Amino acid sequence: MHQNLTRSRRWFLRLGAAWSAALVACRSRTSAPGPSAEPRAIGAAVSSYGSRSRFEKAARFVDQNTKVPLEEAASLTPLHETYGIITPSSLHFERHHSGVPEIDPATHTLTIHGLVDRPLVFTVDELKRLPSVSRIHFLECSGNSRGEWRGGSTESDVQRIHGLTSCSEWTGVPVATLLRECGVQPAATWVLAEGADAGKHDRSIPMKKALDDAMVVYGQNGEPLRPEQGYPLRLLLPGWEGNTNVKWLRRLKVMNQAAMSREETSKYTDLMPDGTARQFTFEMEAKSLITKPSGGDTLASAGLFEMTGIAWTGRGTIVRVEITADGGATWTAAQLETPVLPRAHTRFNFSWKWDGREALIASRCTDDTGYTQPPLPELIKVRGTNSQYHNNGIQTWKVASDGKITNGNRA
Amino acid sequence: MHQNLTRSRRWFLRLGAAWSAALVACRSRTSAPGPSAEPRAIGAAVSSYGSRSRFEKAARFVDQNTKVPLEEAASLTPLHETYGIITPSSLHFERHHSGVPEIDPATHTLTIHGLVDRPLVFTVDELKRLPSVSRIHFLECSGNSRGEWRGGSTESDVQRIHGLTSCSEWTGVPVATLLRECGVQPAATWVLAEGADAGKHDRSIPMKKALDDAMVVYGQNGEPLRPEQGYPLRLLLPGWEGNTNVKWLRRLKVMNQAAMSREETSKYTDLMPDGTARQFTFEMEAKSLITKPSGGDTLASAGLFEMTGIAWTGRGTIVRVEITADGGATWTAAQLETPVLPRAHTRFNFSWKWDGREALIASRCTDDTGYTQPPLPELIKVRGTNSQYHNNGIQTWKVASDGKITNGNRA
Repeated sequence: MHQNLTRSRRWFLRLGAAWSAALVACRSRTSAPGPSAEPRAIGAAVSSYGSRSRFEKAARFVDQNTKVPLEEAASLTPLHETYGIITPSSLHFERHHSGVPEIDPATHTLTIHGLVDRPLVFTVDELKRLPSVSRIHFLECSGNSRGEWRGGSTESDVQRIHGLTSCSEWTGVPVATLLRECGVQPAATWVLAEGADAGKHDRSIPMKKALDDAMVVYGQNGEPLRPEQGYPLRLLLPGWEGNTNVKWLRRLKVMNQAAMSREETSKYTDLMPDGTARQFTFEMEAKSLITKPSGGDTLASAGLFEMTGIAWTGRGTIVRVEITADGGATWTAAQLETPVLPRAHTRFNFSWKWDGREALIASRCTDDTGYTQPPLPELIKVRGTNSQYHNNGIQTWKVASDGKITNGNRA
Repeated sequence: MHQNLTRSRRWFLRLGAAWSAALVACRSRTSAPGPSAEPRAIGAAVSSYGSRSRFEKAARFVDQNTKVPLEEAASLTPLHETYGIITPSSLHFERHHSGVPEIDPATHTLTIHGLVDRPLVFTVDELKRLPSVSRIHFLECSGNSRGEWRGGSTESDVQRIHGLTSCSEWTGVPVATLLRECGVQPAATWVLAEGADAGKHDRSIPMKKALDDAMVVYGQNGEPLRPEQGYPLRLLLPGWEGNTNVKWLRRLKVMNQAAMSREETSKYTDLMPDGTARQFTFEMEAKSLITKPSGGDTLASAGLFEMTGIAWTGRGTIVRVEITADGGATWTAAQLETPVLPRAHTRFNFSWKWDGREALIASRCTDDTGYTQPPLPELIKVRGTNSQYHNNGIQTWKVASDGKITNGNRA
């Protein structure tokens, strides 16, 4: 309560007279209403499970890549149309290699085997009876923003460029709990996680991560996982690239080496300029985006605009977001909205006064390891242009003098 | 990461050998699986807006009170089937007096008038362009748990007794921002908030709260408010009884006294034993519930059980939750799950070893004002049995020696 009050006061002191200009821009009317609206009829009855208003149309963008059928495709979160830090489960991005299997939780099991003293098979109900934790964490596909390695499209919007990141409250059982009960043998160093989808998607996970904050989750935003997020069970590796968070999880095999599966050799490695490839680049680096205003928006006229966006880091917690309106020459701190949580989307806001001239707006974030999100050209200088994954370069939006906003990464 | 790791370690130290007993109770199998499941066909395609698995059936309990039609009724959150602190929007409790109106956001407006220098009318789009905040807060109907004033039902479960509380991430504009721009006159002390439903539900709000943390919200859990939560606009008064959080908000009238409307005289007052009534009892007191195991559950056999539940307080932040298994004679601290946020549901967990004999289990919470949730008999001693509202007494569940759990408030 005190925090909010203080923030309001600061905000008014900061904006001062500029604020009135913003309200003019909003075309607020000053005619007082009559004391009541037209009579309205009694509305709809209560219901057992609600749905959104028929007036709302926000949707995942379905990637119509003609090279793959939709069963192996992606859909992207409308970051410009979502609020706060929780992504609605219905709008959480999707990326599947073999479609969304329909799994009956009554027959699904999780097996833990390999280098353990006591292999165990758990039903979903059994897992739900074990000690649980709930954590708010982002999940980002390592292929998010891949188009920007090669300059991006001047037509693109924030959803199409960066919509492969979402954030949910996840509930489940620490993997450490399960492994400890199975008795991990001294030689064990890796855990292979395998899904129950048609392609049996799998990844090798270092034992250190498995014993740290890894979870087998069955809950998402207060209810069971959505089918496209791995129902009834998925691996959740806070801060690590999406494809390692194996969906429809059916087994964890404890091993003394990585499996070197297709998804960690042919795919999900980063081809460097010298022809070598980075492998096992698990952690998602610090990244931020101005989501409003962003590509595709048009500012009606000069004046005060409220910018908003999200920042996140797989390394820990966001400590600072800064805004530039001059292509990176000068930076000013944005307001971080509470709660600021480790390995979660963090919402930021910023009041920007546009003078009506061409501008290059961007955000950059810093995390609690001291790492700062790099300019895209600097990232490309190190990584080259062969990469598909792990692009966390600063996203610049170009505001033209007519107010039209486009992808400014080529500017 | 460090926090999770530490917690896991503590947990193992605490449970020790008892844990193996719990796994026996879970009937875990030790047969190792073959390396792969039966072949599975390619699954479903990506989609623009997702929905839950057809195997999931959690539902709001629709109160079939025969005295009122369903348009004026309530539906209750299945607290025993939800996880973490975010309530799925589709399962957020409902309480309406005139049904759920269908409102086109393109034509809906919010008027601020009365004792202001500049009355203003905002469209929904205009409000969305103003500086926004996002906050995770609970919302509880003051009539929640009303049956327990008179002893409750031995058949009841946690949803039917206490399901009129939910928790969401809300996004909107501080009321202080709007009032400041309108220029509140010196005589102003109250704000009347009125909805656009058929009954024009209204409540008077003290100016102090309006200028503190009150919000006009348009977002819930990352997307627009659900129709039954006030789409497109509702007042959000963190920590205050649900009916003051006026839905389908159409005007705020600044006044120099309370309106003394039906909802603050005939209803939503607390009749005391001496025949007087408490009025304007806005704040929801500290309260907690064990949601699992709870009324209607049956424990299969003696052994270790993971208890979970929620605690919240309209006065601030939960600092402690304690568990008793002997009807309040002794109490032990439960584990609070992060994040612990002001005026939000807080998730707690507790490992309980049941010895197979009759037990009276309950939780009690303490908030950062030092206030502790009272035993139900003590609450009734002060408030009598005429009340309908503000019952935050400790909920006791009775575990019979056959494992069957019932409402223990009469015990």
